[in-house]
Amino acid sequence: MAQKNQTISPRADDYSQWYLDVIREGRLADYSPVKGSMVLRPHGYAVWEAIRDDLDARFKATGHVNAYFPLFIPMSFLSKEAEHVEGFAKECAVVTHHRLRAVPEEQGGGVEPDPTAKLEEPLIVRPTSETIIWHMYGQWIDSWRDLPILINQWANVVRWEMKTRPFLRTAEFLWQEGHTAHATEDEAVAEARQMLQVYTDFASETLAIPVVPGVKSASERFAGAEDTYTIEAMMQNTWALQAGTSHFLGQNFAKAFDVTYQAEDGERKLVWATSWGVSTRLVGAVIMTHSDDTGLVLPPKLAPVQVAIVPIWRKDHEKEAVVEFARELAATLRGAGVRVAVDERDKMKPGAKYYDWERKGVPLRLEVGPRDLKNRSAFAARRLGGKKFGIPEAELVETVTATLDGIQAEMLETARAFREENTHRDVDSYEVFKTQLVEKGGWYLVPWTDNAENEAAIKTETKATIRCYPLDAQDGVEGKVCFYSGEPATHIALFSRAY
Amino acid sequence: MAQKNQTISPRADDYSQWYLDVIREGRLADYSPVKGSMVLRPHGYAVWEAIRDDLDARFKATGHVNAYFPLFIPMSFLSKEAEHVEGFAKECAVVTHHRLRAVPEEQGGGVEPDPTAKLEEPLIVRPTSETIIWHMYGQWIDSWRDLPILINQWANVVRWEMKTRPFLRTAEFLWQEGHTAHATEDEAVAEARQMLQVYTDFASETLAIPVVPGVKSASERFAGAEDTYTIEAMMQNTWALQAGTSHFLGQNFAKAFDVTYQAEDGERKLVWATSWGVSTRLVGAVIMTHSDDTGLVLPPKLAPVQVAIVPIWRKDHEKEAVVEFARELAATLRGAGVRVAVDERDKMKPGAKYYDWERKGVPLRLEVGPRDLKNRSAFAARRLGGKKFGIPEAELVETVTATLDGIQAEMLETARAFREENTHRDVDSYEVFKTQLVEKGGWYLVPWTDNAENEAAIKTETKATIRCYPLDAQDGVEGKVCFYSGEPATHIALFSRAY
Repeated sequence: MAQKNQTISPRADDYSQWYLDVIREGRLADYSPVKGSMVLRPHGYAVWEAIRDDLDARFKATGHVNAYFPLFIPMSFLSKEAEHVEGFAKECAVVTHHRLRAVPEEQGGGVEPDPTAKLEEPLIVRPTSETIIWHMYGQWIDSWRDLPILINQWANVVRWEMKTRPFLRTAEFLWQEGHTAHATEDEAVAEARQMLQVYTDFASETLAIPVVPGVKSASERFAGAEDTYTIEAMMQNTWALQAGTSHFLGQNFAKAFDVTYQAEDGERKLVWATSWGVSTRLVGAVIMTHSDDTGLVLPPKLAPVQVAIVPIWRKDHEKEAVVEFARELAATLRGAGVRVAVDERDKMKPGAKYYDWERKGVPLRLEVGPRDLKNRSAFAARRLGGKKFGIPEAELVETVTATLDGIQAEMLETARAFREENTHRDVDSYEVFKTQLVEKGGWYLVPWTDNAENEAAIKTETKATIRCYPLDAQDGVEGKVCFYSGEPATHIALFSRAY
Repeated sequence: MAQKNQTISPRADDYSQWYLDVIREGRLADYSPVKGSMVLRPHGYAVWEAIRDDLDARFKATGHVNAYFPLFIPMSFLSKEAEHVEGFAKECAVVTHHRLRAVPEEQGGGVEPDPTAKLEEPLIVRPTSETIIWHMYGQWIDSWRDLPILINQWANVVRWEMKTRPFLRTAEFLWQEGHTAHATEDEAVAEARQMLQVYTDFASETLAIPVVPGVKSASERFAGAEDTYTIEAMMQNTWALQAGTSHFLGQNFAKAFDVTYQAEDGERKLVWATSWGVSTRLVGAVIMTHSDDTGLVLPPKLAPVQVAIVPIWRKDHEKEAVVEFARELAATLRGAGVRVAVDERDKMKPGAKYYDWERKGVPLRLEVGPRDLKNRSAFAARRLGGKKFGIPEAELVETVTATLDGIQAEMLETARAFREENTHRDVDSYEVFKTQLVEKGGWYLVPWTDNAENEAAIKTETKATIRCYPLDAQDGVEGKVCFYSGEPATHIALFSRAY
């Protein structure tokens, strides 16, 4: 049964299997009977809720509001923006009927789509919402007074993927998509960059994932964007994961849906657009950045449960007092804003409970037995390891919050050090790049001359792609020559294998 | 343009049009290009978020956790529970293809479902999730240790409705659906009743809507339930609105999906189930319970903005000081947990601002002009009307919170009084019932003998239905005779027209 514990394959032996094992043992997600769609189990969903709540506060602090647009998009809408349809038509779920009818028993029974209930125009299940949102913006925008529109949506989307992997690539996933409308190009570019910064800060501060913000090459741009900004994170196998994107859409969707506004000078002008999103993929990024051979490790700021208190008793008569003490400690911590669970499960040994909380990635465990009760203290174990330590009740809040802060900082620092160790800045020839990539993986910051053909050739030969042109690395490009073509370099590019 | 203000039809003249006008002028929702699907505009979505956050806390306080299950359900799943498929097959959106292909320009261009990408088994877009969830529960439940499962899901669902009305009946809507699994019948019944109580308390305490909790007659039961509990609310035209339901599902879904558990005594037994849900329909209930001819009225506990502060200046040099003062008052109120907006919009007259906040249903408005600044006070106007009054800065928090509490209580009391006034308990003949229903509408609590045929006959003749058998009214049934059939009564039934 799915509930029985199974072992986790060592990360070093089989990274892909390790990842799936961590998810299964952490009770984060499960496979569903619908190909490519996963079930987010309570613990996995709680991690997503924590991501959502933190980001939502950041969006609202930067002036955005939430709204909700339809799941279904008329098929013809997709065709209105040429690149957009090119990018999404091949992976759309298409609704063609609005009713089922019974199949007679002699023909096998069950139900089938009712041929008399065929839709005049098929609907697609949104793979992203630019088209329907810009149709609505066309209704809402008339004058400069109606701008900017700064709307975000939390929603499910569907992209029919053939090769799926839990959290990283699934047919249906949960995400947020911001869609903004502006009077000027400058304002739209500033918005796209602001949201990239919001994502960068969030990844670093909350997920403890150091990310590289950059801009995509033309071949990796969002279908319909003028510029796609991205944050790229390094996983523990040194592959890159695109963790969030922010697009400057120019006037492409305003043109497609004829959205103009009357400027203060009376002239009618096309509106400028951005869109930006992150998804449940971030849960995959967290797993692959921090977890170990024991299972999931969650950064304290993200963890739905930050502290698990396990009361320990041998004899029945000891139980009530230690449980009561555990509850008191929990109440004290909750009063200080710490998220705590008291594990009062009967008929389960302490060791099994420890194991359970470890696999769920809970940053700190407190054990309280009869002796701890007598001493008015608890015994603490960090999920990250290290020596266990006692905490007197009087110092509980101070020590626990300091420990959690320390864990958060340590996780970010560990991830940063790992990334630095595996980022190569001194490779200046394609031959060396190819050899090193095979031998030790990693990220390569190289001088590069923007060229889609060369990019495709490198991808075919090495499977590595340009993850981005890092924003903070472009100053160094002058005077350099492309590591591939030998031409004067136009960018410093980050190459890597990627999910 | 949609953004221009239009008038609101008087409620007494045309109730249906008034409702649509309140929604449009309150910027709550808009029509979408997809038949039956609405757009939840930022203000409407903020009301839904407030509903979600309040309910979510109540669900968690009663031991529930959130999870997320797939949007798509294999078509064959629906047929596994006979009544369930009967209830939902006629209104399903059916996905049949997973790709679009380009149509050559000479054939009209655009895209069409790709015939080479037809799904082997069609998928339906969930109208509710019992089937897919019970399939998963079958994987997760093995022993009594795995029970109970107390899961809730916040999601979008689709029921293809032909006649739609914003919030009350739309093809796609947002809702929560709780799905619980229990070892015993008693536990499942207790859960279904507990969640009915949670809904009842929430409606009364937060929405200021007094609801009648009851149980549905067999004809009005959820497709697949043994018993459907409901909360019914009276709208201002005296019609009833079913505002939430909680179902005791017996072992129907456990049987359909073969979900058994090993009891402590070693025997394998079928699992017992409940499900319960409320939706964006509640926003419609709030509008129809409280609003007036000026537009939306929101109860303070629900209002995304509880207090709108409008700084007033005639001359440009006055602006900075009054705006600064308004911000100070806002900060003071926010410190006390009050949700405040300061309306700093330029080039908009105070009167237009008042009107805007009124249409958005904001419970309290504070006006601050140069004279108020001099007196360190604000001038307050309640959305519900009544004499405007001054509030000295020193008494701001105390007076504002007391005023908001007072408004909340007054709204509940007004709704309760209206319901009482329009609830008729003395009608004991069908003839009188028919006449009164036409003349003055209202609710009728009548002695009734449970009989589906008679129920259908009454519905055909009067359009009135049994909304529920109110839980607290059944003691009075003994010795009474049915107002319709003259037989010994089995229930006290609540009859009414309904949405």
